[in-house]
Amino acid sequence: MEKQTKENLIYKGRIITLYNDEVLCSNGRLAKREYVHHNGGAAILAVKDDEILLIKQFRYPYRKEIYEIPAGKIEIGEDPYETALRELEEECGYKASTLVNLGSFYPTCGYSDEVIYLYLAKEYEKTSTHFDEDEEIEAEFVKIDDALKMIKDGTIKDSKTIIAILKYVNSLY
Amino acid sequence: MEKQTKENLIYKGRIITLYNDEVLCSNGRLAKREYVHHNGGAAILAVKDDEILLIKQFRYPYRKEIYEIPAGKIEIGEDPYETALRELEEECGYKASTLVNLGSFYPTCGYSDEVIYLYLAKEYEKTSTHFDEDEEIEAEFVKIDDALKMIKDGTIKDSKTIIAILKYVNSLY
Repeated sequence: MEKQTKENLIYKGRIITLYNDEVLCSNGRLAKREYVHHNGGAAILAVKDDEILLIKQFRYPYRKEIYEIPAGKIEIGEDPYETALRELEEECGYKASTLVNLGSFYPTCGYSDEVIYLYLAKEYEKTSTHFDEDEEIEAEFVKIDDALKMIKDGTIKDSKTIIAILKYVNSLY
Repeated sequence: MEKQTKENLIYKGRIITLYNDEVLCSNGRLAKREYVHHNGGAAILAVKDDEILLIKQFRYPYRKEIYEIPAGKIEIGEDPYETALRELEEECGYKASTLVNLGSFYPTCGYSDEVIYLYLAKEYEKTSTHFDEDEEIEAEFVKIDDALKMIKDGTIKDSKTIIAILKYVNSLY
C-alpha cells in the first residue's frame, strides 16, 4: 500500500494530466510517483465472417502509421459502450446495433491510470465516416488468420488490437 | 503524415518526459500533439512445466495491487534483453541462462512512445531478490489454465501480462 501525502499537479492538457504525487510507502518512507491521468478509451473489434476490421493511422509518438482496431477516448461522463459505438461510426462508418463486452485492461500500469474497454461488434451496417478534422484513417477487413500472422511477425504492435484479437480467438470473454 | 514544426518540452521527470509539440498535418493544418516519452520496458514470462510466474504489486496510478509478469524500465543505453534478465533476478530472484524473444508491443499509442519488449524464460535457477527500497512484490507460480481464466474474468488486466501469456499459448513468436 502507498498513501498519497501530497497531490502535485504538473500539467493539465487536452487528453492527459500529469501528476508527481508524494506518497507514504508501507515501509515508512516517502517517495514520488509520476503518473498520467487519462479518462480511458474504448475499442471495437468488428468481425465479419472470418475477417476483422483494422485501421491504419499515423501516430505521432512513434512518428509512423500503425495498425489498430477502431477506438477513441471516453468523454467525461460517457459510458465506454457509447464511446465504442460512436467511434466505430466516426472512424469507419459502421453503425452497430449491439456490442459484446470483451473486458477491459490496463495499457501501462507503471505511469498511467488509463483503462481501455474492449467490445466485439458482430452486426453493423455501413453509414458514413465523420473524421475529426486532423484524423486520417484507412480501414480494411483482414482475415483473422492473417491478423494472427501480423501479431506474430510484429506488423500489429498495438496493445488493444492484440488483446482484443487474442481474447476473441481464445474465447476469453 | 504529420511533421513536427515545434518541440515543446513540458516536463522532464524521472521516468517520463512530457511534450506538447506543434505539428503540420497533411491537410495543411497545424495541430498540437501531447505525448509522453518513456525509454521502454522489458517483461519476462517465466514458465515452469504448466505454470507461469506472476507477481502482485501495488500500482499507484490505480491505487491498488495488480497481477503482472516481472518487468522493468530499460535504462538508457541498455539492451532490453539485459533489462529482462536483470528484472527477473531483482524482482523474483531467478537467474535465467537464456531468454526467448516474444516480440514487442506499443502499450498506448495515442499518447506515449513506449515500447515493451517481451521475453520467455524456460530455464532459470533461484538466487535472491534485490528489490528497490520502495518496491513490495509478491511472486507466485500459477497454472497456465488458471492464468487464462484470470484473463477472462478480468483478474489479470495488465497489457504486457495478457499479451505475453496469449502470445505464448498461441505460439505467436
